[in-house]
Amino acid sequence: MKYKIGLIGCGTVGQGLLEILETKGEALKKDFGFDAKVVAITDKIKGTATAPGGLDIKKVLALLSQGKSLADYRPGKKAAEADPLDVIAACDADIIAELTYTNIQTGEPATSYIKKALQAGKHVVTSNKGPAALHYHELKELAKKKKVQLRIEGTVMSGTPVFTLFESGFAGNEVKEIKGILNGTTNFILTKMELENMDYADALALAQKLGYAEADPTADVGGFDALAKVVILSNVILGGDVKPSDIKPIGITGITKQMVMEAKQEGFRYKLIAQTKRDGGKITAGVAPQKLPLSDPLAGVMGAQNALTFDMDLLGKVTIQGPGAGKLATGDAILQDLLAIHRNLR
Amino acid sequence: MKYKIGLIGCGTVGQGLLEILETKGEALKKDFGFDAKVVAITDKIKGTATAPGGLDIKKVLALLSQGKSLADYRPGKKAAEADPLDVIAACDADIIAELTYTNIQTGEPATSYIKKALQAGKHVVTSNKGPAALHYHELKELAKKKKVQLRIEGTVMSGTPVFTLFESGFAGNEVKEIKGILNGTTNFILTKMELENMDYADALALAQKLGYAEADPTADVGGFDALAKVVILSNVILGGDVKPSDIKPIGITGITKQMVMEAKQEGFRYKLIAQTKRDGGKITAGVAPQKLPLSDPLAGVMGAQNALTFDMDLLGKVTIQGPGAGKLATGDAILQDLLAIHRNLR
Repeated sequence: MKYKIGLIGCGTVGQGLLEILETKGEALKKDFGFDAKVVAITDKIKGTATAPGGLDIKKVLALLSQGKSLADYRPGKKAAEADPLDVIAACDADIIAELTYTNIQTGEPATSYIKKALQAGKHVVTSNKGPAALHYHELKELAKKKKVQLRIEGTVMSGTPVFTLFESGFAGNEVKEIKGILNGTTNFILTKMELENMDYADALALAQKLGYAEADPTADVGGFDALAKVVILSNVILGGDVKPSDIKPIGITGITKQMVMEAKQEGFRYKLIAQTKRDGGKITAGVAPQKLPLSDPLAGVMGAQNALTFDMDLLGKVTIQGPGAGKLATGDAILQDLLAIHRNLR
Repeated sequence: MKYKIGLIGCGTVGQGLLEILETKGEALKKDFGFDAKVVAITDKIKGTATAPGGLDIKKVLALLSQGKSLADYRPGKKAAEADPLDVIAACDADIIAELTYTNIQTGEPATSYIKKALQAGKHVVTSNKGPAALHYHELKELAKKKKVQLRIEGTVMSGTPVFTLFESGFAGNEVKEIKGILNGTTNFILTKMELENMDYADALALAQKLGYAEADPTADVGGFDALAKVVILSNVILGGDVKPSDIKPIGITGITKQMVMEAKQEGFRYKLIAQTKRDGGKITAGVAPQKLPLSDPLAGVMGAQNALTFDMDLLGKVTIQGPGAGKLATGDAILQDLLAIHRNLR
């Protein structure tokens, strides 16, 4: 089947997706019958390019890698300053990939983009945690009403399968509890503190130097990033109605080298654990550092990796571990969602 | 949609499936629109019961738990000694669940049962490693010709998702290498040798006492069980054409307590690793004990658990860890395949 895709936001995730579509386009056609064109790209910083017949992705990637604006896609032709809402309305994409940056307080402007696309009868895939954490049930309801699909694989653990795993691999199981390491930056810091005997401040500085942590690291080290993800898991997988403001996360800023070393002596390891559990009608979710015994599959997850343990009635405990960030890994999350939409439509 | 299921073989896996269908039947109808009846069960030891309108599963489970024959399902009525081939031909099942014991030398009689079912236009799900390791491509071709589905989730890691994970979660990725712990018995033995300082012979005796290992433990400790599974992964996921006889497995019988302890001193851990890799057109597969660094996600897999690491071009390494055996976990593998057939037919 043929698809026209519109990209709202073209940072790391969008460029990862474009690279994958460029290198794998032919294979995706051959192996899955998935034939996609990108008809519109709009980004607040990088500008806008549209082409109803499909953009030349190689040309787009070249412009981006040279730091040029997407307005230069058609030299000589003056490009309009495009509002994403207008691009969504005007382009004839079947699928909108909403890949802008997360605002976990308001979920905007991403939520408005997603609503606009669903209202227009377009499928939506997103890696944006804001709309998924704040408005999942409302958006899902709108998608259902409009008979289109809304998919969010990239919001948790990048392309490491979480929602597709739940939908297909765990089908029929009741998930009782989900527990995991959902923030790679804090896991990197804790790993460095233990294995290289670093102070918290030094490990954080290293994470910032390597680009794992922002200049203001609060979202990571304060547990807010993991919180957004555990809210999404609570609502999507456990069917809850949890809001980020319901949970007060505890981050890793209070963890000292001495605590890490003492835990090690006792055969334990500190991890920033995001956890959510259904008990009858009630969901209990939280984010806090925990001292795990080394026998816990989550204790062995080192560096910037992510992992989740699902506890289920039929299968018992199953743990999946993989990348939680990265251009290709997150681009692949979007690809997985595109292919899932395709499978469901066949 | 409504389905009629026929069970060939009713040991641990079959009974696990029946228990799941009994307890989850209503939920499966409500959540997935999957409405299944069991119209035939035949087992070499436990006899045969058929009912075109659907068997009373509660009654079947009661007979089995009392050690009675399925022939007693209709008291007074003399039951025929049923040949599974005749049951497959005579019952009007849409899906045959082939759940007999594995013969890894010949794949029989399971392969004949599967062929008969596919020829008759019935979908097939199986947990039997014989047909999957020896005749996968031939059977898949036959299924394609007959426009029915053949699914094998239960052949590797019981219900821990492997093939559904590959199909949906890893779609679009090229899998370069698969490496894992696929035999719970040997992993249990190695765990006991390290953590409880047991000799190989004592750990094996304990595994036998607990029902993890057979009286003749060769299939497990000689690596033959893991070998069958790595052949299946090579052929199904890497698209190879490997035969069990192509590989000479090395088991754990040569691993001594001293070796385990020396590895521990050096920060390593022995695991029986099944591994398969595609290099251009060539597949290299093997089973052998390896000394893994403790940082390897597979090193942390303890006891009777199984785990697999997939190395892929887009996602990098993703590891899934979960049960590799058990009544409900393997019954759930069959349920996953039934639901996948249902999803694909919708």
